Amino acid sequence: MSDSAVPTPAVISLLTDFGLDDGFVGIMRGVIAGLAPGARVIDITHKVKPQHLAQGAMLLRNAYPYFPRGTIHVAVVDPGVGGSRRPIVVRTPDHFFVGPDNGLFTLAYRHEPGFKAFHLDQPRYWRSEVSNTFHGRDIFAPVAAHLALGVPPEEMGSPVENPVHLRMLEPKVTDRKIIGKIIYADNFGNLITNIGGGLKERIQAHDDVLIKAGGKSILGISLNYNSVERGQLVALFGSTGLLEVSVNFGSAMKSLQVNVDDSVEVIFR
Amino acid sequence: MSDSAVPTPAVISLLTDFGLDDGFVGIMRGVIAGLAPGARVIDITHKVKPQHLAQGAMLLRNAYPYFPRGTIHVAVVDPGVGGSRRPIVVRTPDHFFVGPDNGLFTLAYRHEPGFKAFHLDQPRYWRSEVSNTFHGRDIFAPVAAHLALGVPPEEMGSPVENPVHLRMLEPKVTDRKIIGKIIYADNFGNLITNIGGGLKERIQAHDDVLIKAGGKSILGISLNYNSVERGQLVALFGSTGLLEVSVNFGSAMKSLQVNVDDSVEVIFR
Amino acid sequence: MSDSAVPTPAVISLLTDFGLDDGFVGIMRGVIAGLAPGARVIDITHKVKPQHLAQGAMLLRNAYPYFPRGTIHVAVVDPGVGGSRRPIVVRTPDHFFVGPDNGLFTLAYRHEPGFKAFHLDQPRYWRSEVSNTFHGRDIFAPVAAHLALGVPPEEMGSPVENPVHLRMLEPKVTDRKIIGKIIYADNFGNLITNIGGGLKERIQAHDDVLIKAGGKSILGISLNYNSVERGQLVALFGSTGLLEVSVNFGSAMKSLQVNVDDSVEVIFR
Repeated sequence: MSDSAVPTPAVISLLTDFGLDDGFVGIMRGVIAGLAPGARVIDITHKVKPQHLAQGAMLLRNAYPYFPRGTIHVAVVDPGVGGSRRPIVVRTPDHFFVGPDNGLFTLAYRHEPGFKAFHLDQPRYWRSEVSNTFHGRDIFAPVAAHLALGVPPEEMGSPVENPVHLRMLEPKVTDRKIIGKIIYADNFGNLITNIGGGLKERIQAHDDVLIKAGGKSILGISLNYNSVERGQLVALFGSTGLLEVSVNFGSAMKSLQVNVDDSVEVIFR
Repeated sequence: MSDSAVPTPAVISLLTDFGLDDGFVGIMRGVIAGLAPGARVIDITHKVKPQHLAQGAMLLRNAYPYFPRGTIHVAVVDPGVGGSRRPIVVRTPDHFFVGPDNGLFTLAYRHEPGFKAFHLDQPRYWRSEVSNTFHGRDIFAPVAAHLALGVPPEEMGSPVENPVHLRMLEPKVTDRKIIGKIIYADNFGNLITNIGGGLKERIQAHDDVLIKAGGKSILGISLNYNSVERGQLVALFGSTGLLEVSVNFGSAMKSLQVNVDDSVEVIFR
Repeated sequence: MSDSAVPTPAVISLLTDFGLDDGFVGIMRGVIAGLAPGARVIDITHKVKPQHLAQGAMLLRNAYPYFPRGTIHVAVVDPGVGGSRRPIVVRTPDHFFVGPDNGLFTLAYRHEPGFKAFHLDQPRYWRSEVSNTFHGRDIFAPVAAHLALGVPPEEMGSPVENPVHLRMLEPKVTDRKIIGKIIYADNFGNLITNIGGGLKERIQAHDDVLIKAGGKSILGISLNYNSVERGQLVALFGSTGLLEVSVNFGSAMKSLQVNVDDSVEVIFR
């Protein structure tokens, strides 16, 4: 497969932990509008738990495959901003990723085998003044805009051989048990775990599994929320391809009194 | 009036109960951008109270008339996703509506007499894989994109004679009293009720009405928030055409300690 | 410098205290899409603390300079809606501002010396029905759309000599002390103050300053959040050019138990 090209109009997605209250996202969009007026900018989310890299990586992974080929994904969850971590751009056969080199793109690397990373070291593609606290505005937004205009990654940075990978994203797997954890709780109180990928098939193939979360047990995997009575717990593989624990017409987060980073176990009996 | 045609560029509005935290809305926009790159997508709201069909119906009704002729309104409040409820597209003289056939469009039906509904039963206009939990991404977003590209509803579905209507949206009306309820509380703590339409004229024509909410009484209908002193309760017909209970420079929700679904009475004396 | 012209496509920014729950912002975008289909609309924020003019003025000031020349900034924090306050449009060499004449543009006036203000008194550029509660939809959105189409401010209003300025935005400055206050707390719990502009240089030039907030003291100004250990307080001039009080990898708002409008002092020792 040849390298991806930017579509017309260019599409830029944004994922950050900035929230929507402060105007930071609007500022990034303003910077992009000034440099690449034709680009379409789409928010994935700005409500990543502040500085929670694993959650950012997961939310990005869940969303980016649904964007058109050649989309430029800007992701900024950046506890090390102003320090020594590198700003990077990554090109894969189908997508571009722009952000800090801190592991935020770990799951994209895993699913995009042909990726190439570049250390953004050419300040002429940035804003002329770069702050120590807001590289989203000063480096990543202008770089995304230049990608949208057709500037290739090679011109904006030097090749990086070993971009940072995040360790904490893999569940612990044994013969009889998978120990994962909750990566985020969605708007409905559904609990999304880090258990997915190849494990989905293994769990679905087994005819007697028990899912444990918040001190309670769920017997078996269901096809949808309505498979159980109202108010009952249910475990299923949701639209994300990840194991979710939910309550039909209710909130599993409230019922189980659990939170992001709490553990969820799958037991093969 | 002839049937509506999609303007150039096409406008697609989105209303859901997904919230903005999880990336679901961004995913729907990504799907649309891939199929209909020229379409403009505008969020109405994604903060409908989860699975609260009446609130979704009301918020959609308040917003859609302000959109240009031919706008495609995608609304997803969908407790029955993955079950037997039908996905539909509705064409009216001025608008299109896409979503689940669960009553979410009840108020649009009431105001758009010439509407025609179609059961979306042609999977070739959907994403190739359809999940049991996220029809917003897999069915409704692609159908909206195809409408934006000019595919007529007839090609995407079969006529539906009796789309579902929601019962809970009408206040109870007698000679001396109207018993309505709070459908939502806005960002300022203003309480918006389900009392509007023809009742507005009747209430305004009567020269001695009492409005009761949260155990307190308000005498008469005012023209605007400033008609009363700071901190005082006021009842008025707001920009939505619906009866609102407010506190000037304050929050009626906090003052009255009431919530969505609590009752509001109008008494003719 | 000649007066600003609208770029192609026109860019319209929105800043309000409407929140994102009620559909008000979507309605404004719908109105704009109907009148100026080519305009690009970008949200700065809709989470200004309800009716907090100083916070709105500050957030607008932080964001607008990053938008392209000729951007039309619509700002609606409007406690006096429906009363006697004037709707205005302001033209500066680089930007347009549209909203209520209540001081919301004070900081823009300060930074845009060549500004001219006009009282919007030509209803033919508004929606045909104007409510008493939602001028964002009925006056400001249509005026912004007409600006986007090239209608000059002079046609839409009469010159205003003395638009309203807001008093509460200036910290109290003496030889040995600056007494400012917290204007907002961002998503990370960083506390942004009203201390900036020329004071930044004075504070940075002084080699022994103490910053006091919430009963605690911080010695000196740092360059970035990482200048201190995790969990420690730090004072710095952030991307906004304003003095911020933060906790590295934490929330200063939670640590200090402070809130918007609480005081922050800078003491020159």
